[in-house]
Amino acid sequence: MSTAAAVLDRCARLGRLSEEPDRLVRRYATPAMREANDLVAGWMREAGLDAREDAVGNLIGRRDGAGRTLMLGSHLDTVIAAGRYDGPLGVLAGIALVERLGEAPLPFALEVVGFADEEGVRYPTTFLGSGAITGRFAPAWLRLTDDRGVTMADALRAFGGDPDAVGSAARAPEELLAYCELHIEQGPVLERRGAPVGVVTALCGQTHAQVAFRGEAGHAGTVPMDARRDALSAAAEWLLAAEALARDRPGLVATVGRLVVDPGARNVISGEARLSLDVRHGSDAIRREAIGDLRAEAQRVAAGRDVRLAWEAHGEIAAVPTAPELRERLEAAVAASGVPVERLPSGAGHDGAAMAAITPIAMLFVRCAGGISHNPAESVAEAGVAIALDVLERFVRELA
Amino acid sequence: MSTAAAVLDRCARLGRLSEEPDRLVRRYATPAMREANDLVAGWMREAGLDAREDAVGNLIGRRDGAGRTLMLGSHLDTVIAAGRYDGPLGVLAGIALVERLGEAPLPFALEVVGFADEEGVRYPTTFLGSGAITGRFAPAWLRLTDDRGVTMADALRAFGGDPDAVGSAARAPEELLAYCELHIEQGPVLERRGAPVGVVTALCGQTHAQVAFRGEAGHAGTVPMDARRDALSAAAEWLLAAEALARDRPGLVATVGRLVVDPGARNVISGEARLSLDVRHGSDAIRREAIGDLRAEAQRVAAGRDVRLAWEAHGEIAAVPTAPELRERLEAAVAASGVPVERLPSGAGHDGAAMAAITPIAMLFVRCAGGISHNPAESVAEAGVAIALDVLERFVRELA
Repeated sequence: MSTAAAVLDRCARLGRLSEEPDRLVRRYATPAMREANDLVAGWMREAGLDAREDAVGNLIGRRDGAGRTLMLGSHLDTVIAAGRYDGPLGVLAGIALVERLGEAPLPFALEVVGFADEEGVRYPTTFLGSGAITGRFAPAWLRLTDDRGVTMADALRAFGGDPDAVGSAARAPEELLAYCELHIEQGPVLERRGAPVGVVTALCGQTHAQVAFRGEAGHAGTVPMDARRDALSAAAEWLLAAEALARDRPGLVATVGRLVVDPGARNVISGEARLSLDVRHGSDAIRREAIGDLRAEAQRVAAGRDVRLAWEAHGEIAAVPTAPELRERLEAAVAASGVPVERLPSGAGHDGAAMAAITPIAMLFVRCAGGISHNPAESVAEAGVAIALDVLERFVRELA
Repeated sequence: MSTAAAVLDRCARLGRLSEEPDRLVRRYATPAMREANDLVAGWMREAGLDAREDAVGNLIGRRDGAGRTLMLGSHLDTVIAAGRYDGPLGVLAGIALVERLGEAPLPFALEVVGFADEEGVRYPTTFLGSGAITGRFAPAWLRLTDDRGVTMADALRAFGGDPDAVGSAARAPEELLAYCELHIEQGPVLERRGAPVGVVTALCGQTHAQVAFRGEAGHAGTVPMDARRDALSAAAEWLLAAEALARDRPGLVATVGRLVVDPGARNVISGEARLSLDVRHGSDAIRREAIGDLRAEAQRVAAGRDVRLAWEAHGEIAAVPTAPELRERLEAAVAASGVPVERLPSGAGHDGAAMAAITPIAMLFVRCAGGISHNPAESVAEAGVAIALDVLERFVRELA
């Protein structure tokens, strides 16, 4: 079996460790996660790694070496009704890479990390695992409860972690050389470009907002069209304007995924419509300019329809560029592997965004079929994984 | 006190008979409705009417006469958090008219009817009262339950009605001359035209449908704008096209009051959007042509965005024109009262729509402030009610 086939085989085996019999659900600090960590720890040891868990449940396999540490990895938790590659592929590829490197001398230590929580499905927080490693785990999180009322502290204790020592999971920047993550793309860009892998330029910045239009509710039968102040029509007009604006600006995505109408009855003109807005781009400047324009557009629509606009900012996340020097090395490794060098930003968040706070990061995407992820239909090609493993191996050897 | 002031005073007194202390709620066959029927029956008797209740609780005050019967009236039940004029104004105006007519000889009998249920708030059916009078009360309705599990039969029995004799409430077409209803407009048309009253040309026909667009759910960050099949965007585009189409066709109203997005999460491109559609017009031909065009428009939008369309018809109600001869008489009475003759269709349903099955109908609207109804802020001007009473009196005397 090729290394790539072996990695996919392990993804399949890991994908059977679930909280539910009929679909893959593996949330933070659950028994399914316990089994997953144990299985992967065994594979780490087979590869010659020294496997341990930190206080929050991150699984870390280490190959000692002189100088600082290059971390490879991704996360081992999943969403609900997950696919088997989102996360695990990066961890298992890291272990496979260690096996490939064999006894090759390296001027740095190597660690493969399986983060305990990236998806944030069980508790209302994300990047628990990488947050702990970067020293950003807030002790107050331990009091958060899951949907059955179990606190994170109790769950972690049952899992075998140590809620009183989460600070001990933090790593010092000076001991790290870099963090490099391999992950499925979760979008259709590489497939559309016909490329098996892509080098990530940045993890996109995000702006979230709630946009509300307030008009006047009225009787669907008795208020003529020209006397209406229909909140839903205003929302629709703005939504289409937002779509057109995003289409016009390369790399920008703007999404209205939630729309709630009030009162929401067939025979009542809507008095209020509330929309969620999610805007992302690899450049903070472009994203912020778009937000300003989207807001101006909402004001124009509201004024034209004599409805009121309420724009509630729900926070923003700055873009995290990958380290230019590492990116160039990764691009060189892609080229040396004989495939076209494709660059793309990541619209989804990844552990790398947290890790960038303490060390330079690099990230390689593997094409997934149809851009589908967070879905049992998630799929990658063995050939693509083989290329990604070659690229990673070249990258590590060149870094040495 | 003027007759109009007296009518408004009675509306205010009746408006205090409610199931709840802080807002007006008077549903079918409740103790509040019992009090209302008793109070109005007293006023009927003061006016010289012979007051009785039929088997379903309709209150009927009769002044005998030769030949057939002219019925005047409206309903005494209300919506939740109602205003005090929607319904009662027509009943109390009818009683006031009988008082004004005094001993005047008429070649027909007069009846003032207070229908027991028009709004259909307590049970999932409307026009219970007029339905019984027109012989369209389905015995199966007696088994319907309210939100506390009380069957209609039990409620009616407690109210003093007779569930075993609902058929006895039916009136024979040959004993009726006509039905004439006075009602608040519940829309802003008369106010915009500066007219105190308006002659109703027809009760609008209605088409109801559920329109669903099915695209493809996806990650808000990873799917580029030009790779999306966003169901909500399709819904928005069609909704605006429907609005534009209705604006272009005089008298047509098209309303999307409900829109549900699936999965409805901030960070997920919507996979499905379901909209309610409510289209009304006084002409069935114009309404049906509009429905055909709206559906073609939905197909065009769906095709342009590569999403699927599901159009589910939820029934239609034919328009009910008022009787041309009665309408002309009402118009003549309006002109004779010295105010402009305004004609308009009724976008809302009324008891007249049911009554038209057994007798010619006429309907007069009184302007209400701001077009507001089904709301405690519902309001009419005394001057407008005075004109309406004059018009009604002229109409009845001329009919004689």
